[in-house]
Amino acid sequence: MSKAVPEPVTRLVDAFSRLPGVGPKTASRLTYFLLRAPDEVSVSLADALRELKEQTKFCSVCFNITVDDPCGVCSDARRDKTTIAVVEEPLDVLALERTGSYSGLYHVLHGAISPVNGIGPDELRIRELVTRVNQGDILEVIIATNPGLEGDATAMYIQRELLPKGVKITRLARGLPVGGDLEYVDSVTLTRALQGRNLL
Amino acid sequence: MSKAVPEPVTRLVDAFSRLPGVGPKTASRLTYFLLRAPDEVSVSLADALRELKEQTKFCSVCFNITVDDPCGVCSDARRDKTTIAVVEEPLDVLALERTGSYSGLYHVLHGAISPVNGIGPDELRIRELVTRVNQGDILEVIIATNPGLEGDATAMYIQRELLPKGVKITRLARGLPVGGDLEYVDSVTLTRALQGRNLL
Repeated sequence: MSKAVPEPVTRLVDAFSRLPGVGPKTASRLTYFLLRAPDEVSVSLADALRELKEQTKFCSVCFNITVDDPCGVCSDARRDKTTIAVVEEPLDVLALERTGSYSGLYHVLHGAISPVNGIGPDELRIRELVTRVNQGDILEVIIATNPGLEGDATAMYIQRELLPKGVKITRLARGLPVGGDLEYVDSVTLTRALQGRNLL
Repeated sequence: MSKAVPEPVTRLVDAFSRLPGVGPKTASRLTYFLLRAPDEVSVSLADALRELKEQTKFCSVCFNITVDDPCGVCSDARRDKTTIAVVEEPLDVLALERTGSYSGLYHVLHGAISPVNGIGPDELRIRELVTRVNQGDILEVIIATNPGLEGDATAMYIQRELLPKGVKITRLARGLPVGGDLEYVDSVTLTRALQGRNLL
């Protein structure tokens, strides 16, 4: 039966299937799309894949992904060198940059504390964060981990580690998403919004 | 702002975004997954992409995708050489092979007649189908184009072309999907199921 599917096709379907959120159906749809698309589409994807790992590394200061070390943010003279936003993943840096309202530095933990998945503080870049704070220029550490169990645990651990350093420690506000509808907000978020209510 | 995203990352995000059904969000999720995944995952995907076009071609008989020409189906002595199933895409061959209940040959049109998209009969492999039928061994042509406007137009065109050849021309039955619920079936399908009702 499988004679109808040549080996190179199966191989690409399998390779696509290893990506998160790509099932066998999507994988074959992508493969057959590429078969019909101009060669350039698959060649540029193949090149980009090779160059991704060859040309990128982690910034030795903030551990974000970068071509040059230190990264563009860490080496930018215009950034505020007294503030660090601590995030779980490189994608979170992107999200904060997109707001256009943060001009400090970053620190990428590469995960969150998660006993279930066997990830403790030593698997994350927390020691390096403490070292950065020890070096003295930092006035505020904004903990921007995800609002959830693992993000909360990570935030609490970092807070305890940094408390003796006398640095200001803040965390992103939790509350109603802008444009959301009170009626549809989950009760944990609503409780947070109540607790964190602001004086007008 | 974009300094936070190194060039190789942007390039891969862009390359992924060119795939159908992959938006910018999915593209960056895939890219950041690959950054953390073992090198082997992105390398095997890159290799498979290169080999896809290098090692495959269209079968000169049925125009399915293949490594060897003629393809595994066309050169298989055990297949019924008197029947051709005409399909729009190589993926449709897969679907029919998966049923395990078809043992004839195929003919892949690589599309369907679609005036809106500027695809006429000459853009499809219809002339080659007529040539195959002219060669004489074919007793039945099963038109397995999609059940829709374009598939119907293509089926009608092929039927008209093959009518003078005296070959049996059939089309896949349209009706209720097995496991479906009458209540939720659209009325066009239900009309087809009524028209095509079978004597018990």
